[in-house]
Amino acid sequence: MKAQTLRGFRDYLPEEMLAKDQMLATIRRVFELHGYPPLMTPALEYASVLLGKIGDEEEMLLYRFLDHGERDVALRYDLTVPLARVMAQHGGLQMPFRRYQIAPVWRAEKPAKGRFREFLQCDVDLVGVDNAVADSEMLLIGCFLLDALGVTGYSLRVGHRGILAAMIAWLGIEGGKAERDFLRTFDKLKKIGPDRFKVEIDRLLGLGGEKVDALLALAGDSGSTSEILGRLGEELGEEAAEPLGRLEEVFALVDGAGYSDHVKIDVTIARGLSYYTGIIYETFLDDMSDYGSVLSGGRYDQLIGSLSGKEFPAIGISLGVDRLFSALKEMGILAQKSSPADVLVVQFSESKARSSVQLAQRLRDAGISALLYPTAAKLKKQFQFANNLQIPYTAVIGEEEERTGTLQLKVMESGEQFQLSLEDAVKRILSGGGGQ
Amino acid sequence: MKAQTLRGFRDYLPEEMLAKDQMLATIRRVFELHGYPPLMTPALEYASVLLGKIGDEEEMLLYRFLDHGERDVALRYDLTVPLARVMAQHGGLQMPFRRYQIAPVWRAEKPAKGRFREFLQCDVDLVGVDNAVADSEMLLIGCFLLDALGVTGYSLRVGHRGILAAMIAWLGIEGGKAERDFLRTFDKLKKIGPDRFKVEIDRLLGLGGEKVDALLALAGDSGSTSEILGRLGEELGEEAAEPLGRLEEVFALVDGAGYSDHVKIDVTIARGLSYYTGIIYETFLDDMSDYGSVLSGGRYDQLIGSLSGKEFPAIGISLGVDRLFSALKEMGILAQKSSPADVLVVQFSESKARSSVQLAQRLRDAGISALLYPTAAKLKKQFQFANNLQIPYTAVIGEEEERTGTLQLKVMESGEQFQLSLEDAVKRILSGGGGQ
Repeated sequence: MKAQTLRGFRDYLPEEMLAKDQMLATIRRVFELHGYPPLMTPALEYASVLLGKIGDEEEMLLYRFLDHGERDVALRYDLTVPLARVMAQHGGLQMPFRRYQIAPVWRAEKPAKGRFREFLQCDVDLVGVDNAVADSEMLLIGCFLLDALGVTGYSLRVGHRGILAAMIAWLGIEGGKAERDFLRTFDKLKKIGPDRFKVEIDRLLGLGGEKVDALLALAGDSGSTSEILGRLGEELGEEAAEPLGRLEEVFALVDGAGYSDHVKIDVTIARGLSYYTGIIYETFLDDMSDYGSVLSGGRYDQLIGSLSGKEFPAIGISLGVDRLFSALKEMGILAQKSSPADVLVVQFSESKARSSVQLAQRLRDAGISALLYPTAAKLKKQFQFANNLQIPYTAVIGEEEERTGTLQLKVMESGEQFQLSLEDAVKRILSGGGGQ
Repeated sequence: MKAQTLRGFRDYLPEEMLAKDQMLATIRRVFELHGYPPLMTPALEYASVLLGKIGDEEEMLLYRFLDHGERDVALRYDLTVPLARVMAQHGGLQMPFRRYQIAPVWRAEKPAKGRFREFLQCDVDLVGVDNAVADSEMLLIGCFLLDALGVTGYSLRVGHRGILAAMIAWLGIEGGKAERDFLRTFDKLKKIGPDRFKVEIDRLLGLGGEKVDALLALAGDSGSTSEILGRLGEELGEEAAEPLGRLEEVFALVDGAGYSDHVKIDVTIARGLSYYTGIIYETFLDDMSDYGSVLSGGRYDQLIGSLSGKEFPAIGISLGVDRLFSALKEMGILAQKSSPADVLVVQFSESKARSSVQLAQRLRDAGISALLYPTAAKLKKQFQFANNLQIPYTAVIGEEEERTGTLQLKVMESGEQFQLSLEDAVKRILSGGGGQ
């Protein structure tokens, strides 16, 4: 056997998983606090369900094969197309329909640092409504989530496809390739700066002079949100009126909920996927811009309809779980643990097996995570095991303790030892913050 | 698009998932209380990792294909072989190594009622120790888990491969097919009863008369555990001495931990998989025997070694997640919810959007799951939505409430309504048991 994961795939060993589960538990809790229930769909779908939905390039990356019944099947590529399939397949879903899904997806991309062929996606979507309340709900979920994760410095940058469309008309850019080139370059403006932007846009589209200077002024973020919206309205005229009106409503709702400090307009946000139709957003962590957007999404009013044959306006957020996880780790926000155990129950000798098993059980009954060292190995080895797994306490029953119905509790960090009753040991562990 | 899941696959819609997540959260908590951390491995593995490990029949059921790099890959069939691969691939794992994994596995079996091609497996394993403490730990985890899930009537039935081997020798049965026929028939004894067992065993192996009567007496469960173990020892002699001694130790440890009422010896337990080498167990729910064993496993000291090239005694439990879930639902143990929300925030009118968004946010800040109806639809429709999703409360801010800084809280079941401050509404909801 070649004991090896496939290239672009990886194991999550316990230490990594304990931290990741901690983050995922917060994510689930925040989604459910907003009334979103979980949904689970199969990993495998008919290839015909997945094909022709996102783009040719993506389809090349499908893990696709014939199953035992010669059916053309593929591993899911994202969680949005399966959502569309669910909307089309199941009658009786309560509308508006909300759900979140946290599940792996598979893409046969060239592996690179931080890019894997199997990765966890985490999507939250609201289907069936196209209005400012729905739009604002997504922004508020994003803020609530980052707050709940303990992130303090972050900003949601909000744009709108309708404003971009008005800009494209205002610049006199043709559709097709020129439009895509503009969007791709404009999206990079904040990253590459105005000078390189001017060079690029001139090279790609032959645009320059006053028009581009006016564009750069429009893309700037000086002034309040309403000043920025006002500038855009004056310059872009009627074509931008509806999207600008929507954004004004959305910002008012976000402000009412107390999150205006974290939500900023940024008309350069374009988002790669072509299916967005309205508001779009990305989220950046302060001083951690290397990670890119950790939480992105937007309104996509046509996609589900085109898949399901029924009109379904929709809006969603996709979390970059791996990026977010790496960033949280770098910020030192997630507790690093090598074991879920609060206590290692040490086996003093083989004749104490029964007492040790009993002790571990009583600790668990009290809500304390107790790991029993399963053999009467040398005590030094057992204590070393506790240290290696960073288990904060050890408990041992020796001759004296067995006779007096007590136990020896050791605080591993300080080395302090106490001979205690079970009851007092439980209190001590729970108050020491080592309890679950 | 054929909006259809593949045959043998299914969606878990919100109602189902909310109940299932509730069960899975308890399972995770119990495993972690015992000091077991989570592990995650990829869905796809090299086919060579999975092949030749379990059995030819199973290999036919692999979802296997060539990937974009012409690698021979397959979806995992179980969680035991990936565990063995992890043990072989990663250095530095702390031994003894514990982990649990809850993840889907794929088998191209013929779908039937309750049998799917994608299903969740949930395994907990302890690698690196072969002794009675490790054996007993598995039985205790099983009991603790069923208690934590709220199941009162259940029994873990415990056998041992070594006792079966001694019986086979004592009966004078040859190895190979005869042995497999015996094990398969003996395993069904409790189900088909002694009369049919006699017919079958005579037909398959030509066994009858006093020897089979003696076997039936040995397989009986009259008397205490030590009486049963004594009978087996007397009859089977030296060959059964070691496994019987081990079981005696294990039962003493289980007794010490207070679970002897739930753990019974049953030498007819044979388990299908051929890789078990020691203690084996199955778990049945009282009055729910239709579901079969909901929690099974045993000791398998050769399997991981044979895959990883290094000796690794191991023992584990596999949960029948779907069976257990169906049984818990039938017993009415799981709370049935259609939404995680405690409160539906109703939008009185479009002009109240800002107040409604704000109210929902304040409720969430207080730890209450609040779902905001995203449009100012007819009030009747919004209340109907709350009823359909079984959301216990609605909260609405109308003219009067906006003026006085209050809200109208309705208890959906009783129809009672109260005009309350936000603070009092929060208290009322949290004390009403509707809080999270």
